[in-house]
Amino acid sequence: MKPGRRMDEFTLIDHFFERAPRNPQVALSVGDDAALLDISGRLAVTTDTLLAGVHFPHGARAFDVGYKALAVNLSDLAAMGARPRFFLLNLSVPAATEAWLADFSAGLFALADVHGVDLIGGDTVRGPLGVTITALGELPPGTGLTRGGAQAGDRIYVTGHLGEAALGFSHRQGRLDVPPGFREDILARLDRPVPRCREGMALLPLASAAIDISDGLAADLAHMMEASGTGAEIDLGRLPLSAAYAACFAAAGWDLALAFGDDYELCFTLPRQRVGAFEALRPAFACGVHHIGDVVATPGVRWSDKGEPYEPARRGFNHFG
Amino acid sequence: MKPGRRMDEFTLIDHFFERAPRNPQVALSVGDDAALLDISGRLAVTTDTLLAGVHFPHGARAFDVGYKALAVNLSDLAAMGARPRFFLLNLSVPAATEAWLADFSAGLFALADVHGVDLIGGDTVRGPLGVTITALGELPPGTGLTRGGAQAGDRIYVTGHLGEAALGFSHRQGRLDVPPGFREDILARLDRPVPRCREGMALLPLASAAIDISDGLAADLAHMMEASGTGAEIDLGRLPLSAAYAACFAAAGWDLALAFGDDYELCFTLPRQRVGAFEALRPAFACGVHHIGDVVATPGVRWSDKGEPYEPARRGFNHFG
Repeated sequence: MKPGRRMDEFTLIDHFFERAPRNPQVALSVGDDAALLDISGRLAVTTDTLLAGVHFPHGARAFDVGYKALAVNLSDLAAMGARPRFFLLNLSVPAATEAWLADFSAGLFALADVHGVDLIGGDTVRGPLGVTITALGELPPGTGLTRGGAQAGDRIYVTGHLGEAALGFSHRQGRLDVPPGFREDILARLDRPVPRCREGMALLPLASAAIDISDGLAADLAHMMEASGTGAEIDLGRLPLSAAYAACFAAAGWDLALAFGDDYELCFTLPRQRVGAFEALRPAFACGVHHIGDVVATPGVRWSDKGEPYEPARRGFNHFG
Repeated sequence: MKPGRRMDEFTLIDHFFERAPRNPQVALSVGDDAALLDISGRLAVTTDTLLAGVHFPHGARAFDVGYKALAVNLSDLAAMGARPRFFLLNLSVPAATEAWLADFSAGLFALADVHGVDLIGGDTVRGPLGVTITALGELPPGTGLTRGGAQAGDRIYVTGHLGEAALGFSHRQGRLDVPPGFREDILARLDRPVPRCREGMALLPLASAAIDISDGLAADLAHMMEASGTGAEIDLGRLPLSAAYAACFAAAGWDLALAFGDDYELCFTLPRQRVGAFEALRPAFACGVHHIGDVVATPGVRWSDKGEPYEPARRGFNHFG
């Protein structure tokens, strides 16, 4: 087909989205009224919607839209400790050109292939640009990290670095001038976040609670502490900030790292008696992992900066707020 | 809360969408990064998106939007013969008022309760009105109706009546004047279609192939015959048309019953040696079920009207077509 040519719904599904599944549990994939999966054990199921003009800019690269729509869902599975297996795609596009769809599916499958997940179904409609993905992962029977297992005395960790997507967004908006040498990296972190699936699976037998940081550490840590019926004390000096963030700290302060979101790092709690087992696994965390504070019995999250109390300026991203 | 008040995302999720699950397989429901399901066997998974202005009119009753978004997904599970168990909801709304959400969730759960399905997760975003539902159903290991099992000699059946949603739509558009006594029923069929789940489960051990009629019998029967590598011969005189349709036949002709869609009836094929077993089950099909034609070896669908060949005017609903 020629670039720019509009394709009908069934042709585009066949052309870009039908691929032979790799997981043997897929008894029937795209193309019937439903997919059929043979499952024995525990499934983690999650779904997230990304809309143009809300979650990504109008005019965003189709590759990045496809990649990120899957990434944010895999990040949710990572937070449960689940192994990603399957996903469904609901795509609403104003007009289906071959070039856009080719780029979108390239981004989608680039990430799908890294994690060995199969597209098993979906729906394409003509409408405002938006992508909904539903992702399914597997867990050993009876297992699964939740937000609700933290106990006073546990340590609190985060993977990777915080605030890089926030820098990328602020830079692209012209609100913050990131030094040229860092720009490519921080925009990549915004547009193509790396879901911490391997790290989540490694944490499954160790962590007492976990959440992925989509709304900002301040909001998501508060959710995890509420679900656990506990509180947290965090030393801002321990936050994992990159060289890029350090270079922008005078303008960004703490809050871009705490309250913007789109980090897609894992925040998790670890009982002290498992710290040794965890330290033995640390080399597997190529993204880095940092102890930022501790779980306490008193509800609420308390932040301190060089011993002084600190209050983050805004509390994450909340639609309809 | 007062009607008309806007609610924040987390409040509205708690208020309208968190309900204790009834299926014991739900180990963890709404409120974490993912739901956890304990599954042993075969799962059918399907997803469909409904957008305002495309699949339902702007200004449609919220009750009907919630009901229909779930109904079209349960209909896909019915076509596989699966027992509906769980669903996820992605809701995009321009503004979240309590009155709209209360009505939407009432419609959604009215149907969910009939079928005993649990809402296990989802996502709410601010955007153009649209609903994506992903539904999961269970099947005994190794089973499942597909589009691909029809064989020459099989009989072809449809449940219920065809073309009633089409009448409702045409009437609402002012293109066709439906007699007053029928209006309420045909609009109900358009706005609140009844997914044929019980019928699909009853057919699981009997039918050789099945599809739900969402794009119109002409298009969906053609899909089923293509998937089976067979053809079909249909006698239009056997089509199940209601009294409402008969009253409008002079204006509607065959095509509203064949090519509009939104019927959400099942079309299925039955090997002749199972006709006896099926007839014994017929009392279970309170919606009615009719033998409309037969599967033949020659590909393609051939329609006849009193012995004369007939060609439906348009072939279903196809986005991007």
